[in-house]
Amino acid sequence: MSQPGQFTIHATDGQARRATLVTAHGEIQTPIFMPVGTQGTVKSLTPDDLVEMNAQIILGNTYHLYLRPGDDLVARRGGLHKFANWKRPILTDSGGFQVFSLESIRKITELGVEFRSYIDGSKHFFSPEKVIDIQKNLGSDIMMVLDECVGFGQDRTYTERSLEMTTRWARRCRDHYPKGSGDQLMFGIVQGGFHKDLRERSLEQLREIDFEGFAIGGLSVGESTEVMYDILHHIAPLLPSEKPRYLMGVGTPLDILEGVSAGVDMFDCVLPSRNARNGTLFTSRGKINIKRAEFAEDDSPLDPECNCYTCRNFTKAYLRHLYQAKELLSYRLNTYHNLHFYLQLMQQIRDAIEAGTFSALKAKYEAAYCGE
Amino acid sequence: MSQPGQFTIHATDGQARRATLVTAHGEIQTPIFMPVGTQGTVKSLTPDDLVEMNAQIILGNTYHLYLRPGDDLVARRGGLHKFANWKRPILTDSGGFQVFSLESIRKITELGVEFRSYIDGSKHFFSPEKVIDIQKNLGSDIMMVLDECVGFGQDRTYTERSLEMTTRWARRCRDHYPKGSGDQLMFGIVQGGFHKDLRERSLEQLREIDFEGFAIGGLSVGESTEVMYDILHHIAPLLPSEKPRYLMGVGTPLDILEGVSAGVDMFDCVLPSRNARNGTLFTSRGKINIKRAEFAEDDSPLDPECNCYTCRNFTKAYLRHLYQAKELLSYRLNTYHNLHFYLQLMQQIRDAIEAGTFSALKAKYEAAYCGE
Repeated sequence: MSQPGQFTIHATDGQARRATLVTAHGEIQTPIFMPVGTQGTVKSLTPDDLVEMNAQIILGNTYHLYLRPGDDLVARRGGLHKFANWKRPILTDSGGFQVFSLESIRKITELGVEFRSYIDGSKHFFSPEKVIDIQKNLGSDIMMVLDECVGFGQDRTYTERSLEMTTRWARRCRDHYPKGSGDQLMFGIVQGGFHKDLRERSLEQLREIDFEGFAIGGLSVGESTEVMYDILHHIAPLLPSEKPRYLMGVGTPLDILEGVSAGVDMFDCVLPSRNARNGTLFTSRGKINIKRAEFAEDDSPLDPECNCYTCRNFTKAYLRHLYQAKELLSYRLNTYHNLHFYLQLMQQIRDAIEAGTFSALKAKYEAAYCGE
Repeated sequence: MSQPGQFTIHATDGQARRATLVTAHGEIQTPIFMPVGTQGTVKSLTPDDLVEMNAQIILGNTYHLYLRPGDDLVARRGGLHKFANWKRPILTDSGGFQVFSLESIRKITELGVEFRSYIDGSKHFFSPEKVIDIQKNLGSDIMMVLDECVGFGQDRTYTERSLEMTTRWARRCRDHYPKGSGDQLMFGIVQGGFHKDLRERSLEQLREIDFEGFAIGGLSVGESTEVMYDILHHIAPLLPSEKPRYLMGVGTPLDILEGVSAGVDMFDCVLPSRNARNGTLFTSRGKINIKRAEFAEDDSPLDPECNCYTCRNFTKAYLRHLYQAKELLSYRLNTYHNLHFYLQLMQQIRDAIEAGTFSALKAKYEAAYCGE
């Protein structure tokens, strides 16, 4: 029997890896994209929709679920899987990113971080131990440690002190849920901002703690694509090759292809679902904005190469009408298409790695998405 | 071969009738409820959802579709069925009700009604001929004549003058699209406010014009249930028994049962879908509001007697969370349930009429919905 955490690499193509990760709710085939289900729902979609488009794992946000409906309430319902009727794996973040990125008043100390609820302004405290307890209540398959996500432009001194604290927090998380104490996996998060030596130091320290996977945090926080790719290509290949690698909160189709080329296995991002709600849709020929007048009488599908429910059933003219009329079905059909596009991209990536044609696939998308 | 307009009564139970109406896009089994798809979409649902819950016919709003995306544009797409990818019958209203009920500046003359767009304030004119041309462009299976819907509280003189004009408008509609000139059916609309003799006069005048069906307009416009039922029971049985009878814009489950008991065959209302978005849900045991705190930890389905997608998959606790979090999935799952409830009610009504048990069914719902 395969154990949660087991990670098997089937093929490589350059740094790119084609692997399987075992979790308590089943295997996931990597490289993989995880649709974001912030509040226990991938916005506008049902679990059946997600299974239909072959979403293998979704992400839940600890910060949001802790505040509403509350992780205790979710635990009494039997955990997030049962509450949301999602039978496949779930990864939960630690809530750190939301706490640090929201404008709410917050105070960071060695003990943890104090913040105010975005819902009612009430005061709350996240310690490393607390966010693990919350994630235990949620019952996710993969838990993330509490980290401080340092924004772009922070100075070296702050970044250095921060990564050292992130390491201490990571150790406290692991100590609070030692390896083998349950079916939930725990990933560490490499920080260190945009200093390669600090990134390496963060990684060295985290490697001494026994995590089931490693994530790269603190990218896509305001830096240029060039700077992000530089750090990505430096640090990703240094992550333990025998464990899953997760690039947090990234990104565009090209970012994902770049991440895979650097050896990353897992991705999540709100981009496809958020863009969908704004009318920006991903196609095999690049992005389009459905609100443009040129689509008013366009009777072709969004993407002739796509076989998703939206593309099989509706024209651009109808989708533009729904968008202009602010109809609920617009959000739904657009979200379905964009997530299907991302998941199809991941399937193409997995196939290409197995076939040894990953570079050609990457070049094809770079041509379609050039200048974006 | 059965022709559009053919109406066959299979069974009666008191005044209640169980019948089949043939349209250009297939047969509908009556009594029937028509979900409202104002802007070419039943809010939040796909055509597949509607087929799955056995919606036999949906309603489109001429006023909204004329303004956006425009009936000419829809005609160039091959009509509303093709534009919205809905293959079953569609009924379109005449736009009159929207023009009269919206606050926009409007001017009624014998020629028609001038009004301003709710979208951009632009000036428009609906004549009886114009609304038929629009409905021809939309390609609906059942067109409605332009009528003036008189609000509750209008005096007898106004109401009398108005119904006479409505008759003249009805004749102009029929003259503009004579019987047999196409596959689209045309229904006349009985007005006359809350005066039984005026209702009778309206009906007598309309009977002289050869319509494929007759509707009762001008009810549920602010009057009490008692007053509405009084007019309903007076006029519905007087409508030609060999043609379909349609009670416009009504209503609650009890209103529909009352309408059926008076001999009505067809209904439409925004109530189930609008209530769904407000968290008010219909069940076999009465209405519930999902936002109530008592449901926060309720792990049972909305309605134990319901087998809809929502009830088969989700608990009240989860539905309450989605509602509280204003999630798009809340609108969708709630709308699915409420429309499924209405369509199931109609199936029960059809079965009961065939079995001669309609009164018992009506009594059962009156007990569950008493005091509402």
